[in-house]
Amino acid sequence: MSGLKAVFLGTSSGKPTLSRGVAAVALVLDGELILFDCGEGTQLQMMRAGLRHSRLKQICLSHFHGDHVNGLPGLLGTMTLDQHPDPVGVLGPRGLKEYFALLRRLGILVPRFPVSLREMGRDLSSLQGEHWAISFERLEHRIETWGFRFQEADKPGRFDVEAATSLGVPMGPLFGCLQRGQPVVLQDGRTVFPHQVLGAPRPGRSVAYITDTRPCEASLRLADRVDLLIHEGTYADELRDQAGARGHSTVVEAAILARQAGARALVITHLSPKYTDIRPLLDSAREQFENTRIAKDLMELAIEAHG
Amino acid sequence: MSGLKAVFLGTSSGKPTLSRGVAAVALVLDGELILFDCGEGTQLQMMRAGLRHSRLKQICLSHFHGDHVNGLPGLLGTMTLDQHPDPVGVLGPRGLKEYFALLRRLGILVPRFPVSLREMGRDLSSLQGEHWAISFERLEHRIETWGFRFQEADKPGRFDVEAATSLGVPMGPLFGCLQRGQPVVLQDGRTVFPHQVLGAPRPGRSVAYITDTRPCEASLRLADRVDLLIHEGTYADELRDQAGARGHSTVVEAAILARQAGARALVITHLSPKYTDIRPLLDSAREQFENTRIAKDLMELAIEAHG
Repeated sequence: MSGLKAVFLGTSSGKPTLSRGVAAVALVLDGELILFDCGEGTQLQMMRAGLRHSRLKQICLSHFHGDHVNGLPGLLGTMTLDQHPDPVGVLGPRGLKEYFALLRRLGILVPRFPVSLREMGRDLSSLQGEHWAISFERLEHRIETWGFRFQEADKPGRFDVEAATSLGVPMGPLFGCLQRGQPVVLQDGRTVFPHQVLGAPRPGRSVAYITDTRPCEASLRLADRVDLLIHEGTYADELRDQAGARGHSTVVEAAILARQAGARALVITHLSPKYTDIRPLLDSAREQFENTRIAKDLMELAIEAHG
Repeated sequence: MSGLKAVFLGTSSGKPTLSRGVAAVALVLDGELILFDCGEGTQLQMMRAGLRHSRLKQICLSHFHGDHVNGLPGLLGTMTLDQHPDPVGVLGPRGLKEYFALLRRLGILVPRFPVSLREMGRDLSSLQGEHWAISFERLEHRIETWGFRFQEADKPGRFDVEAATSLGVPMGPLFGCLQRGQPVVLQDGRTVFPHQVLGAPRPGRSVAYITDTRPCEASLRLADRVDLLIHEGTYADELRDQAGARGHSTVVEAAILARQAGARALVITHLSPKYTDIRPLLDSAREQFENTRIAKDLMELAIEAHG
């Protein structure tokens, strides 16, 4: 199965520090990039991570707080300077088109490649790529905010060369037909069907990106048995009241949600700049969900196929 | 005379590189900060330079190309999070108020301290601070762009203690009156006038910030006998045609302008990311104007009083 990894470009909440940029996570799939949020400095972090913006296909914005979007005009401006030729999709809350229209009118951002703007919360219910789909649901924050689930398309089962050969299929183009799910007719008139030579279909991998929000039912649906849950954990559990008041989650709440959703792994991001020692945060989260990590900038995580 | 320095926060044109951020220069005057342009990443560069945003009084935006303004929402957002209490002025081209209104409506930037927005090109002809004034003129770029001249207020001449004493002025509060320009009456009925005990007034220092533009008459006026001219030099002189077509200057054109304006010193900034070896650029500029430097990020330059 081809590579899929998450690269954490910015892991701070609210404002950047000298060690943590503001919100951005890249998913890298066969060299194709999908970006979730785009805080100030994302283009530089992509450079530092070796992620070429020429591969960028889709940007998904959770909400219009500055620490999640202020890097967008600069990134797309740089792509314009670099004569990016291909279309890029931007998915965001209502207001996205008005934002781009003003940036263009003022001269702040005048992209010279096709940018496809899609606003969530109207007719749109998911985004469909060639090899993946992205679905989204409203979260519970102070302003309109959305969580995302990236779902890779299922892949056909592995091709069993030995079975094909013993059924008399000659090596060559007929192998490819069977791999693509087409029955083939042999020279002796017999038909060989794909299920005779293919293993069970391999389910695609899934990643949920959920920030900024209180724990909620929508998050549970987005994170349902996901391979990787990326969830905010702005505060330590002592500050649960503050998290509640500000529409955020604690690291322990993130871990409980990962367990309830049956996620396979959890990475907590969007940490308040007040935390410099993350060990106690990690320990408290792992009491609820063992397979927890706390993100740091430029951390990469391969997402493995399961089953 | 109190300290005045320029701190170069971002010195690249168009897009950031790993060694140069996009446009921003801070003037630091008695701990008070004035910012010229605010490209993406300016708040982080201020942190690296040890410039506290709590001291920021005034931001001046030359124009609405993204590499000069994309750091503004993040900087002011961070100041909001940090509960900045004092008013901050933002001076920019027409469209500034519409820009802030949209950022506020979307939730990208909702400052919780007074922000005074002033648009150039209407009735406004200069900004007057307590100890300085900023004047501005239209430059010649692809969109509406402004150059600035910072002028420190003149200071009274030095107080001559010996002259005052020999005139019979007793040490004490009368010294202060004379220093503030008030005549004083001595116990014997004689009047002593300030000009009898003060040296010649000391002219305030001046800095011109001129980017992005072709060389023009407005620049000559802004830079007239200025203590420090900060001028763009996007290209080497071989690319003069490209500079002309894109509304920019070459490093040699910047140096010629410094000489023609009678500037005391020149710092060239806003370099195309294509130049990694700046030595040839510097050499070519110095043939026209000896006291030339080429900016690099986090460079600091003290501006000395003259005369």
